[in-house]
Amino acid sequence: IKESQLKADSVEKGLYRHYMLKEIYDQPWAISETLEGRFIDNRLQENAFGHNATEVFDQVESIQILACGTSYHAGLVARYWFEKLAKVPCNIEVASEYRYRKPIVPPGTLVVTISQSGETADTLAALQEAKKLGAKYSLAICNVPESSLVRESDLVMMTRAGPEIGVASTKAFTTQLATLLLLVIAIGRRFGLTKEMENKISSELFSLPGKIEAVLQLDDKIKQLSEQFAEKQHALFLGRGTHYPIAMEGALKLKEISYIHAEAYPAGELKHGPLALIDAEMPVITVAPNNSLLEKLKSNIQEVSARGGQLIVFMDETLAAENDVNVQIIKMPPVENEISPIIYTIPLQLLSYHVAVLKGTDVDQPRNLAKSVTVE
Amino acid sequence: IKESQLKADSVEKGLYRHYMLKEIYDQPWAISETLEGRFIDNRLQENAFGHNATEVFDQVESIQILACGTSYHAGLVARYWFEKLAKVPCNIEVASEYRYRKPIVPPGTLVVTISQSGETADTLAALQEAKKLGAKYSLAICNVPESSLVRESDLVMMTRAGPEIGVASTKAFTTQLATLLLLVIAIGRRFGLTKEMENKISSELFSLPGKIEAVLQLDDKIKQLSEQFAEKQHALFLGRGTHYPIAMEGALKLKEISYIHAEAYPAGELKHGPLALIDAEMPVITVAPNNSLLEKLKSNIQEVSARGGQLIVFMDETLAAENDVNVQIIKMPPVENEISPIIYTIPLQLLSYHVAVLKGTDVDQPRNLAKSVTVE
Repeated sequence: IKESQLKADSVEKGLYRHYMLKEIYDQPWAISETLEGRFIDNRLQENAFGHNATEVFDQVESIQILACGTSYHAGLVARYWFEKLAKVPCNIEVASEYRYRKPIVPPGTLVVTISQSGETADTLAALQEAKKLGAKYSLAICNVPESSLVRESDLVMMTRAGPEIGVASTKAFTTQLATLLLLVIAIGRRFGLTKEMENKISSELFSLPGKIEAVLQLDDKIKQLSEQFAEKQHALFLGRGTHYPIAMEGALKLKEISYIHAEAYPAGELKHGPLALIDAEMPVITVAPNNSLLEKLKSNIQEVSARGGQLIVFMDETLAAENDVNVQIIKMPPVENEISPIIYTIPLQLLSYHVAVLKGTDVDQPRNLAKSVTVE
Repeated sequence: IKESQLKADSVEKGLYRHYMLKEIYDQPWAISETLEGRFIDNRLQENAFGHNATEVFDQVESIQILACGTSYHAGLVARYWFEKLAKVPCNIEVASEYRYRKPIVPPGTLVVTISQSGETADTLAALQEAKKLGAKYSLAICNVPESSLVRESDLVMMTRAGPEIGVASTKAFTTQLATLLLLVIAIGRRFGLTKEMENKISSELFSLPGKIEAVLQLDDKIKQLSEQFAEKQHALFLGRGTHYPIAMEGALKLKEISYIHAEAYPAGELKHGPLALIDAEMPVITVAPNNSLLEKLKSNIQEVSARGGQLIVFMDETLAAENDVNVQIIKMPPVENEISPIIYTIPLQLLSYHVAVLKGTDVDQPRNLAKSVTVE
């Protein structure tokens, strides 16, 4: 295995105004680091998860993901991947709920915990609870070596995002997603992942740094867009499938650093309540990649527009432009389905960053929040 | 089996100003109807779910709940019940997401759909998708006999709430919960539900009408409380465990009929983002029954108060009063853990109703929403 020759990035902001902006721009590099040395001849090496990973993976019958906050959103995306691509049953739960509810842990469960710091109190306690309930196998996805979560897990994959200083997580999240996709490959080999799909996902992963660079070119356009939010108090984020958790993550970023009450919904749930909120005061941000759900999302967009809602839609540039005065389209480069959630995260990070700067909040240290939630 | 002698309630509002208020007050009667004739000698009869229910239940190895909107919240509560009380693995998913994501359907899965109308397009389509993916057993919880969902399911339990006219669901929700608790008993007999717990839950179910009557006595107090919301644009609802979905349902009601942007969080997730939103402009409603999670919730309450947040806490009257100027306590009658989510729903329904009346919205027909979502 080729070991990374790159040093961890510096914790200096350098030319960037805030750590968060630096960390958004770190992502092409950070994801290269995540992938570095984990493939030989384009094939993922399972011992990258630990020397006994192959033996453990052979015993796995289902996946249980436990996490909090942004890491929980990464797990939500992975749940779709595990069931759709790997064909392995996967559950996910907020760690603070799981630890107190006496859940069932079927034999063969691999407990996957996700935490940037590896010290998130609820995630650690949830892992301990799962073990008490009979879980035999555990795997941590983490950014800090030698953290408690790493020490208490059988298998580990470090995200290698480098130090993350901004309280609002950015590069930790996208590297968690890349790491989870590696795990989907490893587990999927034992279930329904075809060799063709494994190769496809692998090469898509290596294309990520370049594709993220391309999306970062949208920065000026998104900065302009952010001006529309400076006076807003609300926002709704919509997505479907793997992009619903991306909508959740976009809403969380805006909450955390701009103090705008942003909420995400799976677009199909609009008619079951939140549509009542729609008026010109609540911008609706829609994550609409070019996949099989696009037509469904378009009909959701029309419902919002017909009620006077103002839409901002992140959409594949190859698609025909809408002719609706209520709809602004931000054209995104074309991207494959599997890695699309990683790519569509980037503009939402930039949006929340620019809105926060306009609002004059303390971007890197938002009020009331700590970087690692090490207490309950 | 003793058949109900009561007629379905009339669809007249009678003395009530709105259907929604009538339907809130219908609940003691509606839940009696749900239970009527389904027990012999205090023992739940499984054929109440269908003549072949016992044979089907014998095959069940896990539960998959599919629903939308308010019915989804009922399913979320049931998930905790199934795993904690019945000790059977249970999953739940928003129907509009499930139907498009190629989920795994393990053998022995009982697909439980929940829908007031039985015509919810996404729930129907999700059931069809589950069958296509190999699901052999299905059960519908529904309020409208001969609806599509009823026709397409192997087993059925009608909630018997009587016609629900208000778009914001009230009695349909609480009768769904009571019905789900019956299902927890039936399935739990085959897994880890003790005879003692079965008897305890059964007698708690029969105590519900009287306990709901007692909570309805809080109406005037809650009407007074609602005046604090008339000028608000935001609200946060907090709960833990089985009361997290009740917080979600409370937030949804306020959204639907008062157009206040209300959002629910599992209280443990506060520190992972939403705490940044807290200021005097965002009231925080907390559902804090007297269970093992109360101490945890109290610490969440202190976090909010310390940051200037205004709290309204629904709490067991037997607990010591708080001495915090930022905290208003609404004392609730003591109630057992298992049925507590049903009881704590009532004051949140009343709260959203009175806020909507004060705001002058069309309570029974809120803007942009339809009673049954029969299209995608």
